[in-house]
Amino acid sequence: MEQEYSSILLENAVTALSRLPGVGRKTALRFALHLLRRPADEAQSLASAISGLRSGIRYCRLCHNISETELCPICSSPKRAQATTVCVVESVRDVMSIEATRQYFGLYHVLGGLISPVDGIGPDALEIASLAERVSSGNVDEVILATGATVEADTTNFYLYRLLSRTRPGIKITQLARGVSVGNEISYTDEATLARSILARTPFEI
Amino acid sequence: MEQEYSSILLENAVTALSRLPGVGRKTALRFALHLLRRPADEAQSLASAISGLRSGIRYCRLCHNISETELCPICSSPKRAQATTVCVVESVRDVMSIEATRQYFGLYHVLGGLISPVDGIGPDALEIASLAERVSSGNVDEVILATGATVEADTTNFYLYRLLSRTRPGIKITQLARGVSVGNEISYTDEATLARSILARTPFEI
Repeated sequence: MEQEYSSILLENAVTALSRLPGVGRKTALRFALHLLRRPADEAQSLASAISGLRSGIRYCRLCHNISETELCPICSSPKRAQATTVCVVESVRDVMSIEATRQYFGLYHVLGGLISPVDGIGPDALEIASLAERVSSGNVDEVILATGATVEADTTNFYLYRLLSRTRPGIKITQLARGVSVGNEISYTDEATLARSILARTPFEI
Repeated sequence: MEQEYSSILLENAVTALSRLPGVGRKTALRFALHLLRRPADEAQSLASAISGLRSGIRYCRLCHNISETELCPICSSPKRAQATTVCVVESVRDVMSIEATRQYFGLYHVLGGLISPVDGIGPDALEIASLAERVSSGNVDEVILATGATVEADTTNFYLYRLLSRTRPGIKITQLARGVSVGNEISYTDEATLARSILARTPFEI
C-alpha cells in the first residue's frame, strides 16, 4: 500500500487503528490526531491498557468466559446460588448482558460462536465437546439455551438438544422466553414474535 | 465510577478506548473484545503504534505541521516550486486535504485552531505571532487564507488580513474560491454559495 501521510509513525498508527471493527482510515486518522492533541500520558495509558488486555486476559478453563485467572470469577464464586444451572451463550458479551440483568445466579458456558454450515462453522469449531463433558460429569441439573433467535441459533440449539439429551437422558433443557419486548407496542412487534407470545401466554400478574 | 466488567484489565482497556473521539463504552467494549479474539501481535502492534505516535511525533518549527524532524518534509523539501507562498490552515488535517489535491506547491502554516470569542480562543492561543514573524521576515510573497467558510474562519481571516497587511504593507493576501461544488446540482447548492458563484463567475472553459 502506498504511504499516504508524510509521517511513517502516523501511517503506522492509522493502519493499526483502522484494523478495529467499523473503523476506516478516516476515523483512524481522527483517533490518531486526537491522541496527538491530548497529553502524552493519555496515549501511553491507552497503549499499555491494550497491551495489558491482550497479554493478561485468558479464558476460563470451565466456561470459556474471559478471565484473569484459570477459573473466572463467576465459576469460582461461592455466591452463585444456582451453580447446577448452566446458561449456554454464543459470546462473552452475552454473559455481560445477562449478568447486567442481576436475575441469573447460575453458571455459564460460552460457545465462542454458533453452528453455521454456510460459514463452514461446525460443532468442532465451538466449545460443544466441553459442554457435553460438563453435563456428563453430573454437576449440571439444567441447561438454558440462550443463543438468540436466528437461524444459526436454532440450528445450534437443535444440535445441542439432541447431543445433551443423549449424553444425560432426562436432563432439563430450557430456552429463553420469546415474547413482546418490554416497552414495545403491539403494532411494532413482528408477526412471528406476536404469534409465539399468544401461544405462550401466561397468567396475568399485578 | 463503578466497575462494570469482571476483569479489571478489560475495564481499563474499555475506559481508555472510550476516550477516543466518538467512541462510547459499547463501542470500546466491541474494540476490546475484537482485540481479544485476534492474534496477540495485532494488539501489541496497535499498542506500540499508539505509543510511538505520541512519543515520536513533534511539530514543525516553521509551519507547525506534524513532523518527525525539526522541519517537516514540506518545509525542508527543495521541490516545492512556490516556496514563497504560505497557505494558512486551521489544522494538520487541512494540510493533508490540500496535499491530496496535488495542485499546491507552496508551504503551509498551521494555526492550530480558529479565533472564537465564544470559546475563549483568542489570537494568542494560536500560531498567529509566528505567522506574522514569517511574513515580516521577507521570504513570503503571498498568503492564502484557507480556513473554511464558518463564522470563526471569517473572524480569523479578518484578523489575519488586518495584522498581515500592517506587518508587511502591500503583501498579496488571497482566499480559496467559493462556488458550486464539483459534482453538485444547482438546486442542491445553498443560496449564499450560489450568490457568490454568480458574482464571481469566470470565463467559460472547454
